Amino acid sequence: MLAGPGLFGGLFELGDYRRPVLVSSVDGVGTKLKIAAALGKHDTIGIDLVNHCVNDILTSGAAPLFFLDYIAAGKLNLEQVGDIARGLAEACRQAGCALIGGETAEMPGLYSGEDYDLAGFIVGVVEKDRMITGQTIAAGDVILGLPSSGLHTNGYSLVRKIFGTSRQALDKHYPELGRSLGEELLEPHRSYYLQLEPLLSYIKGIAHITGGGLIDTLPRILPPGTAARLKAGSWPVPAIFNLIREKGAVTPEEMYRVFNMGIGMTIIASGDDAGKITQALPEAIAIGQITEQKSEDRVIIAGAE
Amino acid sequence: MLAGPGLFGGLFELGDYRRPVLVSSVDGVGTKLKIAAALGKHDTIGIDLVNHCVNDILTSGAAPLFFLDYIAAGKLNLEQVGDIARGLAEACRQAGCALIGGETAEMPGLYSGEDYDLAGFIVGVVEKDRMITGQTIAAGDVILGLPSSGLHTNGYSLVRKIFGTSRQALDKHYPELGRSLGEELLEPHRSYYLQLEPLLSYIKGIAHITGGGLIDTLPRILPPGTAARLKAGSWPVPAIFNLIREKGAVTPEEMYRVFNMGIGMTIIASGDDAGKITQALPEAIAIGQITEQKSEDRVIIAGAE
Repeated sequence: MLAGPGLFGGLFELGDYRRPVLVSSVDGVGTKLKIAAALGKHDTIGIDLVNHCVNDILTSGAAPLFFLDYIAAGKLNLEQVGDIARGLAEACRQAGCALIGGETAEMPGLYSGEDYDLAGFIVGVVEKDRMITGQTIAAGDVILGLPSSGLHTNGYSLVRKIFGTSRQALDKHYPELGRSLGEELLEPHRSYYLQLEPLLSYIKGIAHITGGGLIDTLPRILPPGTAARLKAGSWPVPAIFNLIREKGAVTPEEMYRVFNMGIGMTIIASGDDAGKITQALPEAIAIGQITEQKSEDRVIIAGAE
Repeated sequence: MLAGPGLFGGLFELGDYRRPVLVSSVDGVGTKLKIAAALGKHDTIGIDLVNHCVNDILTSGAAPLFFLDYIAAGKLNLEQVGDIARGLAEACRQAGCALIGGETAEMPGLYSGEDYDLAGFIVGVVEKDRMITGQTIAAGDVILGLPSSGLHTNGYSLVRKIFGTSRQALDKHYPELGRSLGEELLEPHRSYYLQLEPLLSYIKGIAHITGGGLIDTLPRILPPGTAARLKAGSWPVPAIFNLIREKGAVTPEEMYRVFNMGIGMTIIASGDDAGKITQALPEAIAIGQITEQKSEDRVIIAGAE
């Protein structure tokens, strides 16, 4: 099997598929970069990027094939680039994904000081007749939530506005977090691929909870006429979100639109299949149900004060 | 045929191939962005990006399939993003490539003012037994050059150092250019795909002349023991390069390492096949020959003062 960097482009031999659909995604890690920079810790931001991409294409049922990265800075700091690349490589290895190319660009005058930007691009594959599309989702189906590992890669601009990015703020230890704010904020975006891959045949729809939170991302997979009714309190909301809400006086509505609130991935299945999934994957929690759509709202979070 | 943006990732149904090799590339447009910004003209930079990517994977003989872009700014200017997207779409359309996804990221604090960065990711496909690898290149083969449309996307940091990016400098009209410096510098990177696609079976190796110029990019496709001997003067060097050399007092050596010097793509073929290529594509000029390697130099430019 041919896989690796080519002379001017990465090469990947596809192998045997009947009707392969290539699923691709491009992502950045947003201003989580600024937290990494403030703490001088760059070896996990690559994990965030790869896992974000892996989760995105997993929503179609795709297995990751290969990944390419783009790193741009005013002046490339080789140690930083090495740290970033280590994170990328480690996450790719875990996902069984080939890291076959990348571009590092020096852009003097565009980025200042030690600033850099980072984007990733992934291609995966799924057989056309096994694609997950959400089309068969119907009233009565169960919505399962998979716990997030923290903020993942969303909401960092609001967090920075609330806490700032001084060393003092980031190094502060919070008993409810069991660690410093900075450590909590840098916790890598987790990947759900290895856990969900064996269960894909039971799943009707998958939503990756990113920018827009549960309220804006879930509707993307709901067929017309259906809505999602979630029950606040049915899953544990990690302490970091309460800390952000209190310190920033953020409304519950905004919290649910900006942050994942403890659910990184939602999967939708029939009641029977949901039972099989939770048996195989006990961390999957029933957090709500699909209902008929009765108002303009596609996502109702009952009990969110 | 399924091709387009999916719910969380772009979808592309591959179609029928015997042993498909996916060829991918990621690129930016470097600080050509700064020229676009200085002139407030953003509708061609997307063409640069797509064509750069298309040419990169063409070096393996690949046909472009789909493209995704990443646009990051401190605050997204919707008019600018629209202009950029128009360029991306137009170049994709010309290459028969699906523009199936993208990410626009607001990164307050990373980019200042109207600054933005732009990266592109392309995936193409080639049958494994039709891949162009350069492996059969041998002494006696002919090196053909295809004219560039200008600087393409390389050398802009040096150009900015020499001329600056004031409106006055960029609006200055140069008789030898027949237009202003800014217009010349923004000329889009041309694509060679449509011209070369019908001729790929005659071609042993293709090098896309980007950063590093002829001196650093040609060796990537040369098998061990071979070298490229180019004859300066065998192709016309566009006026912009002489202007840069004179105004910046740049040495010929540096010019050849930083700029394409009028050759955007080199193709290598046997003498017979080179004849067929130039007959079908008269703009292809014989600019040198493959020889046995006699020194450490892999690329010798005879007659470059």
